[in-house]
Formats: sequence, structure tokens, C-alpha cells
Amino acid sequence: MGIQDAIAELSTVLGQRLTRSKSDLDLHGRSETHFPTTPPDAVAYPETTDEVAQIVRTCARHLCPVVGWGTGTSLEGQAQAFHGGICVDFQQMNRVLDIRTGDMDVRVQPGVTREALNEELRATGLFFPVDPGANASLGGMASTRASGTTAVRYGTMRDNVLGLEVVTAAGEVIRTGSRARKSSSGYDLTGLFVGAEGTLGLITELTLRLRGQPEAIASAVCAFETVGDAVAATTDAIQIGLPIARIELVDTASVAAVNAYSGSILPEKPHLLLEFHGTDSGVAEQSGMFGEIARDHNGSGFDWATRTEDRTALWAMRHNAYHAILAARPGARAIVTDICVPISNLAQAIEETRADLAENSVQGPILGHVGDGNFHAILLIDPDDPVEMAQANEVSDRMVKRALQLGGTATGEHGVGVGKLKFMQDEHGGGWAVMGALKQALDPDNIMNPGKLVPPRN
Amino acid sequence: MGIQDAIAELSTVLGQRLTRSKSDLDLHGRSETHFPTTPPDAVAYPETTDEVAQIVRTCARHLCPVVGWGTGTSLEGQAQAFHGGICVDFQQMNRVLDIRTGDMDVRVQPGVTREALNEELRATGLFFPVDPGANASLGGMASTRASGTTAVRYGTMRDNVLGLEVVTAAGEVIRTGSRARKSSSGYDLTGLFVGAEGTLGLITELTLRLRGQPEAIASAVCAFETVGDAVAATTDAIQIGLPIARIELVDTASVAAVNAYSGSILPEKPHLLLEFHGTDSGVAEQSGMFGEIARDHNGSGFDWATRTEDRTALWAMRHNAYHAILAARPGARAIVTDICVPISNLAQAIEETRADLAENSVQGPILGHVGDGNFHAILLIDPDDPVEMAQANEVSDRMVKRALQLGGTATGEHGVGVGKLKFMQDEHGGGWAVMGALKQALDPDNIMNPGKLVPPRN
Repeated sequence: MGIQDAIAELSTVLGQRLTRSKSDLDLHGRSETHFPTTPPDAVAYPETTDEVAQIVRTCARHLCPVVGWGTGTSLEGQAQAFHGGICVDFQQMNRVLDIRTGDMDVRVQPGVTREALNEELRATGLFFPVDPGANASLGGMASTRASGTTAVRYGTMRDNVLGLEVVTAAGEVIRTGSRARKSSSGYDLTGLFVGAEGTLGLITELTLRLRGQPEAIASAVCAFETVGDAVAATTDAIQIGLPIARIELVDTASVAAVNAYSGSILPEKPHLLLEFHGTDSGVAEQSGMFGEIARDHNGSGFDWATRTEDRTALWAMRHNAYHAILAARPGARAIVTDICVPISNLAQAIEETRADLAENSVQGPILGHVGDGNFHAILLIDPDDPVEMAQANEVSDRMVKRALQLGGTATGEHGVGVGKLKFMQDEHGGGWAVMGALKQALDPDNIMNPGKLVPPRN
Repeated sequence: MGIQDAIAELSTVLGQRLTRSKSDLDLHGRSETHFPTTPPDAVAYPETTDEVAQIVRTCARHLCPVVGWGTGTSLEGQAQAFHGGICVDFQQMNRVLDIRTGDMDVRVQPGVTREALNEELRATGLFFPVDPGANASLGGMASTRASGTTAVRYGTMRDNVLGLEVVTAAGEVIRTGSRARKSSSGYDLTGLFVGAEGTLGLITELTLRLRGQPEAIASAVCAFETVGDAVAATTDAIQIGLPIARIELVDTASVAAVNAYSGSILPEKPHLLLEFHGTDSGVAEQSGMFGEIARDHNGSGFDWATRTEDRTALWAMRHNAYHAILAARPGARAIVTDICVPISNLAQAIEETRADLAENSVQGPILGHVGDGNFHAILLIDPDDPVEMAQANEVSDRMVKRALQLGGTATGEHGVGVGKLKFMQDEHGGGWAVMGALKQALDPDNIMNPGKLVPPRN
């Protein structure tokens, strides 16, 4: 059979770096969320682009599926080998290759995590801004078109990848983009591979845009009477052009979970957590302006701080919110939803989701990157209760349908994988067939992460 | 023959809106630059997306080339019908369809020009920031991935198109993107069609991101002793994160041409022209900080102003620079070059270009969007002197080769068309074949703007 032939052939090349141990296969079959564990047939640990190319060429010859693996933090089953085959784990391609402070860019291998990169950048005065929460690999973040809390100011991976090295489905090595800041030179191949979830090729190197570490950072927190008030304050701030670096909504249920988990004593109301980047006077001005906007929308307890320890505490709370919410129901698993709507429809999308949750007695605290119109309900379910599972899945599906009706998208930042496949036709119409045609053109044998993102082959 | 059959069939549908008058054909065969006039076989003026789809379906059946036309301001021959066929002029699809102030976006037809859009937006407090100089159509700007003076702050068309309606080569109407600010939902089709120069389909509608009109605008001008000093000041400003809205280099030759043309009395040295957007105190702070940076690099005569008339005069000078340069040599035509390099290599790229111009006695004042590493030499040539033409073309070719050697791109903002085709293999290597495969997948009969951007078919 093709897969076994590919494994046999690659064993002679990679030796110990191709494993079939049960523990390794299980580890690479697991998902962060609710997808069943689906182990690959083997896991490869390449050290060079040439090795990746050799793996793909071998797999192409034997029609063996190839699935990329970063840190395994994807949320829609993107890295799972539903059709078996070889999982390519990039953890040994984890070098920062070239920091170019003058150009404010960096060349990295795909296995570098965002925290490791920022650690290496610390002394340079530069940083990489995209922050999805998890300490994901940069190759994985690019493949999922990840974003997170800072996208409102610094954009998503789409905006911060300047160029790529990619091993195509034919096992050829190509380079996309250049080190120039902009280009009109042909189709945007970088943009095509970013967000392609490994279905068109494997990313073996990235050139990333960096930013200057801000001279001053201020964090702020503010309570609101309703989610609608918090969203209205967000909209006003965006519209007057306040260059907010982060603006996060935590709803009442999330605040309650955080209070219980970390012993904080925030009033149990919807809150916005904010961060401002700029000069000393700039962040003071931004904070002051936001304070005024908050007051106009019944905000209370507005407080801002520039001391590192105060800021760290605030954001630790936000980053721990997912664990706090999970802890609110011991033994529960989470369905992590992810929709994004035009900001003018955000309050409606959140309110209708809350009503739906209440009607169906599903626990689902809401967190959101509200400056982008992106939010998550963390649906807590007993994985052994099929009725509850079904109810939660229905709420989740209705969230997506509502997002599409409101002019939004089925996924703001988690990607398609298999979890969002069923909404692609509704969202993209004829565009989904176009995606299928692109896949067919670049991966005619369907070996690159098959079963994800594009229409299934007949 | 196919083309004539397509024309006959479309005549019955479009009536007077399909023309074959010599003046119309000539007008649509002309280029702004040095390409020979190449008229299409007919010009269509559709009024709706359905009509565009009908045109493309008819042309597909008869294998008749289809070339889009906005305002005819492209610079690399993108809109010329080198293989004949039907030119689709979008001037009657020029409506602003929906301004959504709450979401800071707008839906427009492709024939709307950027100035017309900003005129319509004036009362809303919003504006569309991309400014390539020419009053181009927004469909054309998207197709070329245009940018210009404000890209350093607001990005290029890549960053400011949220979604598209496209008529594919099969004559199907698809929608890409959504009204959400970000998405991880599948391949980035919006990004694929932006910059595709009409080779994959025709854009029939655009959703564009808008920005808030800044509370205050300041303009500044500063002379430098050398281009190297001006570039060093630019680099410093970018690195400390000054959110400059425009930063334009005009070299000594350009300043001389501008002085002669408009009666200004700028010292004949390299200058930077800048614009700052922000609050009153913000632009004062930015201007002050830039003034200090300029002094560190031997800048002189630094002056900044917030009065509208002062600002207008300054930018009129910049926008007239092209005409001023042309006027410096009566009867001359221009080869307008366009390269973009990493900013750390910008001074070297400009200095080597100037040396090359001097050695070959080619007149070529240099203007640049230096915050992005993008610059143009305006090569003045006597179109009747083949020796001079050849010399200028060789200088131009060497500029591109130099850009590629320095990690840059063959075109920062003008696109490929036919003018930059010969550099695509060097710039993209195997990536150019990937572009060809994408074209083959989406336009198998090669009817959409044939002969441009991708590898020629055999």
C-alpha cells in the first residue's frame, strides 16, 4: 500500500527521525478541542528544507497524505491525519535565521514559536506583534492565518508575513514575496499560502514583519452595564481612529469564571480590557480619550496603568480566561466557537448568541476581540452526554449562520480545518469551487492535508 | 473568426454600448507610457454585473480576448489589447453603492475613481487613503495592486480591499471576502484577484476599507545634503515607529525641474516632503520628533505647517513633479521605472542608479515613496532616437536587476503588464510557474487579458 511504501522509503533517509511509536502517533493525533484522536501512520522530524522536499516528493510518488504539525494548538482539526499518512512535525526546524533590525524584518524556520521569537528579539527594540494566546509555531500561525488580541492594531498573519519558502505538492521549493515592503509583481502567492492550512504546500521558512517596541504601554480596564454599551464604546473608539493595541470584551459569565479561578474581585458585569502603545504622552492621551468615550456609554471604574506589574496582572487574567472558564465546570470539554461580523452588527450577534445559549441552557461565556468584530463563546459540554453535545453543536452552528446573515465570516481566526467545512458553501458560494480549482491545480493528487478546507473530491 | 463572432453577438445585446469607432478604439489602445498604440477590436460599456458576465460568457464561447479598462492610467501596458478582442470599459459602472460609516467601509462599482469616492465621502468624516497620484478607477487600482504616497501609513490596495465581486473567465459571478474585518475562512481569493491585472477575471464590485479623516494634518519639508542623508532620516523615523502618513523623496534634479516649472525657490538639494496625521498635539509631537531626526542627518530648512493652503501648495508641487520633469525636456517621452527594495538597501539602490544615469548621459530625475523603499526614475527620452531609447531601456533593466540583487522587487506599485514580464522568472523562479498553473486553472482558454503577467502559453 502507498503509505507503507512511503514510510519504508523515508525510514532509510530519516532514520530515527521517522517514528511510529504509539505514544508519538497518539500525540500527533490529538486535538485541543472536541475532535476524536486520529493518529497518522508515522511522524517525521525534518531538519532542513531539503528533507521536507524529499518527504513530499516521496509521498507524492506513493500518493501518501502529508500533514504539517507545529505545536498542535489548532482548533478545527487542521493538523489531524483523518486520512492517515505522514505527519511532518517542524519542531526541529526552530531557528531564527536572520534578524534585520534596519529593515524591521526577520527570517525564521516554521517551528519557531512566537514567544521564542520575541525572546530572541528582546534586545533589538523590535517585536513580533501577532498574539493568538497559545504559544503557537509561526509556521502554524501563518497556515491558519491566525490573529488574536493585537490584530486591531497590527493586523493578522496575512498582514505580517512578507514572504515564504514553500515546498509544493510536487516537492519543489519555491520562494514567495521579497524583502521589499510592497510589490505589484504578479499574483500574491504569499497571501495564497497564508491561511491555506497546508493544503497547497508546506511552509519551510517565513519572512516576518517586525514592529518597534513601543516607548510606553498603558493598560486599562472598564466595566459596562451591558454588552451593547461595551460594543458601542469600542465602535466609537475605532471610528475616531484611536490606535488601540488591544481591546477585549469579557462578558459577565467570563468575569465570574475569572473571579472564581484567580481570586480577582472584578464587578460581575461586561468588561473591556485595553492596551495602548505609543509615546508617554501618546498613551496618556489615548487612555484619557477612551475614558471619555467609556463615560458616554455608562462605563464605570475606568482605570489605566503603565506599571509593568499592573499590566501583566490584567493580561494574565485575560489569557487565563479560557482555563478559568473550563474550570468553572469540572470535567467539561469545550467547543470553542469563532465568528467575526461587521462591527455594526457585533452587539446584535453577541446578544442573539446569549439569548440562544440561555434558551438551550448551554453554558457559554463569551470573549471577544471586539475591535475586529470577532468573538468566541466557550461552550462547556459533558463529552459523555450526547444530548448536551448535540445542543451545543446546534448553538454553535446557529452562531455561524447568524454571522453569515450579518455579513460576517464563519471563522475570524481559527480557520476551516474540518470543523468549519460545512459552512464553506454558504459563505463562499461559487468562490468555494474556485478554491477547489486552485487546490486541483497545485495538488492534483490531493496529498497535502486532504479532507480540509476545500470541497471534498468525488 | 472568433473575435468577430463575439462582437456580432454582443452588438445585439449592448447596442450603442458596443462601439467600433476608430476614435474609441484608438483611445483604448493608448498607453500613458512608451508602449505602442494597440487598439482592441471593440469597446464595450457595460452598466451592470450581469452585462459583464454576459460579455465574458460570449467571449469564452468564441475564444475572444477580454481586457478590462478603468481610466487608462496603467503604466506597464496592462490595459492594452495586444491580442485584440474586446475592451471592457467600466466608466458607466461608476456608482458608490453603499457607504457604511459604522463599519468604516464602502461598496463601490469598479469605475468609481478615487477622487470621486473621496468627494462622496467628504461629509462622512471618512476617507479612502490609497493615493497613486493619478485619479485612477478603483477597479484598476485593485487590479494593479496600486499604492503611492500614503502606503507607508495606510498600506496598498492589498490592505484596503475587504472583498470583491468578480466575473470569472467562465462568466460566473462570485463574491470574495466578507464585510468582517478579518477572516480565516479558506484561501484568500480577494488577495488573489487584487494584483491579478484582469488575467483571472474582471472585478465588478469592491468593498473598501475606509479611515477616519484625521483631526489634524501637518505637512513638512526638509532639505538634505545627500540622498543618503535623506534616506537615513527616513529609516530612523520608521524605526522609532513615527506613524508618518507620507514621506516622499525628491532628488536634486527633480527639485530643479519643479522650481523651473512652478516658480518655487527650493534649494537645489534632495528634499523630503512629509505629512503627519493625528490629533493636534500628536502631529505637533510627530513633526517635532522628525525635526530632531532630520537635524541628526544634516537636514536644513525643516519647516512644518498645518494650514490647508500651505499643505496644498506643498503636495501640488509633489503631484506636479512628473509634469515638471517632462517639461524639463520639451518633446521628450518618459520611461517611468518603479522598483522597491528593503529600506536598508535603498540608499545604495538610488546612488547606483544615479551613477548609472550619469555614466550613460540619461536624464532621469528620481522620486520616491522612500518609507516603503520604493522609487521611480523618470527617464526622459527622444522617442525618435533609437540609440537613446536603447540606452534608457538598458538603464531601466539594470535598475530592476539591481533591485532583485538587493532583495527587492521588479515593481513596487505599477505592476507587471508586459513591461515587467521579462523579469518575472528572475524574481519568482519556480513561483512564476505556480502563477502560470493558477492562471491555467482559472482561465484555461487564456481569454482574460492574454499576454500579461504569467508565462506565455506555448
